[in-house]
Amino acid sequence: MTGGSSIPPTEAPPRGTTRASSLVLVNTGDGKGKSTAAFGMVMRAVARQWPVAVVQFLKSGDWSVGEEKVARDLGVDWFALGDGFTWDSQSMDESQAIAVAAWEKAAGIIADGTHRLVVLDEITYPMNWDWISTAEVVAAIDNRPPDVNIVCTGRDAPAELIEVAHTVTEMRKVKHAYDQGIMARRGIDY
Amino acid sequence: MTGGSSIPPTEAPPRGTTRASSLVLVNTGDGKGKSTAAFGMVMRAVARQWPVAVVQFLKSGDWSVGEEKVARDLGVDWFALGDGFTWDSQSMDESQAIAVAAWEKAAGIIADGTHRLVVLDEITYPMNWDWISTAEVVAAIDNRPPDVNIVCTGRDAPAELIEVAHTVTEMRKVKHAYDQGIMARRGIDY
Repeated sequence: MTGGSSIPPTEAPPRGTTRASSLVLVNTGDGKGKSTAAFGMVMRAVARQWPVAVVQFLKSGDWSVGEEKVARDLGVDWFALGDGFTWDSQSMDESQAIAVAAWEKAAGIIADGTHRLVVLDEITYPMNWDWISTAEVVAAIDNRPPDVNIVCTGRDAPAELIEVAHTVTEMRKVKHAYDQGIMARRGIDY
Repeated sequence: MTGGSSIPPTEAPPRGTTRASSLVLVNTGDGKGKSTAAFGMVMRAVARQWPVAVVQFLKSGDWSVGEEKVARDLGVDWFALGDGFTWDSQSMDESQAIAVAAWEKAAGIIADGTHRLVVLDEITYPMNWDWISTAEVVAAIDNRPPDVNIVCTGRDAPAELIEVAHTVTEMRKVKHAYDQGIMARRGIDY
């Protein structure tokens, strides 16, 4: 963002002057950390005693058992409706039906306004696959109750989703252990 | 990474064949989520009942009170030796001395091997400011006990640190709420 960083900053960064009642964040890109950063935000919100909901659009309960367990223990409402990664699915129609059900659940949670943080984990995939309507998701986010903050994760975030978001971060892969043939590791990758 | 994503994948991603006994990860870039993703990994490791240590090189306890509280409640050993952001500091020498002390603490934790995950939060800044020796940090990481996984965060990760890491992600800012004049929000930004 700034150029050189070889000397410590001597001024505070610019501060905003507008108080948003809630924010929409998107973590996208091909790198690690999109969902992990969202889980970090869950942890932060829990520390603030916020009611938090997580809706997983793709990952199975097995894949994310670590985060799910800790989050549930901390009182997070966790909805893992996905049937796992698509390549494990016996029926693509079923995967799509589950993504649609996940969106119906998420739309209800957002409109209800009870949760101050709602994580829509890996929602970009069913959006990009036209399993759920991008326009409908964007409208629901745009019309959210004032205090509902929303975090969306997944690669290739649609332009309309980026448009409605306040903060968008691209997690870009510089290098990854699997490029060196290293297996995914319990406790680190899942 | 792959090109089109408009259809669901039909094949599993490539799997590694080598089992690394531990991994080194770096979250860098100008975007949000570097530390947040590291805290997500803390949460994941805690769920695996791993002993976890976090050493903060810059942020004050105030700034990260949310993460720190939840993590401590979950049994994480948390070392916030930093005296806050440098522009709040009355004495740059003191900031540097504290960064050096933080590195001595971190080096001891790594060499000790008791913690299976060690987060070096915002360590790139004192490295880039020549407050601590990049060569020494990289050597300590490279010579870590076999089971110690390490996550480093901060902008402008030095090339030597990227070299020693297995997985490096650049969190790139696409847009940020403060560009729209929106204030940092409790529960979301801190």
